[in-house]
Amino acid sequence: MQNVTGLRTVEWKNNKVIMIEQTKLPNELVFVEYNDFHQVANAIKTLIVRGAPAIGVSGAFGLGLAVLQSQANTRDELISDLEKARNILFATRPTAVNLGWGLEKIMNVAKTGESVEQIRELVISTAKKMADEDIEINKAMGKNGAPLFDNNDTIMTHCNAGALATVAYGTALGVIRATRESGKNVKVIATETRPIQQGSRLTTFELKHDGFDVSLIPDTAVGYSMANGLVNKVIVGADRIVKTGHVFNKIGTYQVATMAKQHGIPFYVAAPLSTIDMKTKAEDVIIEMRKGSEVTGIGEKKTAPDDINVINPAFDMTPPELITGIITEKGVAIAPYEESIQKLFEANN
Amino acid sequence: MQNVTGLRTVEWKNNKVIMIEQTKLPNELVFVEYNDFHQVANAIKTLIVRGAPAIGVSGAFGLGLAVLQSQANTRDELISDLEKARNILFATRPTAVNLGWGLEKIMNVAKTGESVEQIRELVISTAKKMADEDIEINKAMGKNGAPLFDNNDTIMTHCNAGALATVAYGTALGVIRATRESGKNVKVIATETRPIQQGSRLTTFELKHDGFDVSLIPDTAVGYSMANGLVNKVIVGADRIVKTGHVFNKIGTYQVATMAKQHGIPFYVAAPLSTIDMKTKAEDVIIEMRKGSEVTGIGEKKTAPDDINVINPAFDMTPPELITGIITEKGVAIAPYEESIQKLFEANN
Repeated sequence: MQNVTGLRTVEWKNNKVIMIEQTKLPNELVFVEYNDFHQVANAIKTLIVRGAPAIGVSGAFGLGLAVLQSQANTRDELISDLEKARNILFATRPTAVNLGWGLEKIMNVAKTGESVEQIRELVISTAKKMADEDIEINKAMGKNGAPLFDNNDTIMTHCNAGALATVAYGTALGVIRATRESGKNVKVIATETRPIQQGSRLTTFELKHDGFDVSLIPDTAVGYSMANGLVNKVIVGADRIVKTGHVFNKIGTYQVATMAKQHGIPFYVAAPLSTIDMKTKAEDVIIEMRKGSEVTGIGEKKTAPDDINVINPAFDMTPPELITGIITEKGVAIAPYEESIQKLFEANN
Repeated sequence: MQNVTGLRTVEWKNNKVIMIEQTKLPNELVFVEYNDFHQVANAIKTLIVRGAPAIGVSGAFGLGLAVLQSQANTRDELISDLEKARNILFATRPTAVNLGWGLEKIMNVAKTGESVEQIRELVISTAKKMADEDIEINKAMGKNGAPLFDNNDTIMTHCNAGALATVAYGTALGVIRATRESGKNVKVIATETRPIQQGSRLTTFELKHDGFDVSLIPDTAVGYSMANGLVNKVIVGADRIVKTGHVFNKIGTYQVATMAKQHGIPFYVAAPLSTIDMKTKAEDVIIEMRKGSEVTGIGEKKTAPDDINVINPAFDMTPPELITGIITEKGVAIAPYEESIQKLFEANN
């Protein structure tokens, strides 16, 4: 297993899936243990685990549980059981490309198996390898991204693209970690990221856990912070990037990018190649709409009238003209993105 | 007393000040009753009453209580007591210009009084007249603003510049009310407005109370809503406007205005002339910084780690190039603002 210090968000251990229960953060650091893939599906749906890379690996681990749960006696029965599990896992979050990617990768490997035993072994070992690779990829992304940041930079980030969004280390926050590891001193400004508050609950938690100087702002203070010279760079993760360089990420990213452009502040996206969807056009990406109760209150505290209409999209689209660079494990793509992204995939082969 | 239907935010009645306790909204509509100006100062400080025009009148009513509380036997003693009360009331919120304006207006009138009895009468009758004038001014603003909006517009608003921010009727929401009263059908999108959530707690409450079609969005969904064609116009209030047309308003206004500009959506500010500060330069306006606990949790629910650094400015500055027009009771100022604002003041004399 890939060696990491710090938080391990999702892990395969003794034929069980162990996860940090992220909805309990920052008040409690609780680990949950699952032996049923339905529990994993529910964990993805209810944001116990979130972040595109983490849910990609979680989906794969879900299929790992499904091969153990299946009563199938033949290869074909097992593949059929796995396909049912895949469909249940896939239905949990429609926008993030990594979930489909992780599930498909496991299904393809499973289909090469010739016996029930062989499929079981292949699915579990592949899922475990995917988790290790996720960490390796984040470290490579960090290495590619760190030179873009300067000593004494204050870096703004939105949502949580950190250890808690991946298996460990993080994408955007992985780049920030790598920047510090390269000997530069950096500070971080984290946006709260309403409605789910991944910024205040998760990003500040994990950066403070690792000894970073981190400040929290409400999402409304992005413009103020930039206008008052408090921010030198921005880095965010991505849930899906299409080949034209349009980035689908947590709701609010688009306005952070717009404000950065307005103030001449470089805006970077950090994401593994697995987040890049070379097939779908930007206009065809489905933006998941989430329930209104996420916006009308927090916990038991109701902060809006009953039955008020709510528009609660989970993601928005940032167009390529607002993006300074897309940091991947194979290098940094810059405009024109269609060309530079293609080159990263060629370097990958 | 000026005749209004609907919510009356602050009122002088039987030598007491009656206010809606806005921190209880939207869960309960509770009225509080004060007979001590210190209670009024505390209400302003703790946002029981908020909104620039409402706190201007509340400050005046505070001095109304102070003249009744004073044990002074001479005119000079009473003026001295009033000055002490003025200083306590003024210290509660440094950014909003209306508070200073309301207090100064009362002090000036008080100083014309020749006896204790005359000062008492003058202060109370002037404060009551200011409340009535606030409603008249909002109605005039509505009349000037309504023609700028079209039938079937969906209008975005940030924070609460409504009945609950004024004595009644509202500035920005007053214009929306007047637009409907002029026979046009309009819908509203209200931003949550973290950290204090005036949008979800107050704006949705008062618009729903008055039968408007209103939808709530998190502050992060401003860009999404505009990019997806959900918004035709924006209107907000202001806490202070300087003569160059720089608008100081609730934190987050600047980024709403920037997004509107990016999408070619008209962005209007509605504010009475009393909000316009012709003396102070934009760069000299003090932005009030509020306590971090507003951002690190909501009610009892803690949503960030203990002792995290927080940057929590109450206001930001929107530059004039992002503003389509400033709607006042004397007309609509447009760029170049220095000239058009000056003309409104001349029309006022």
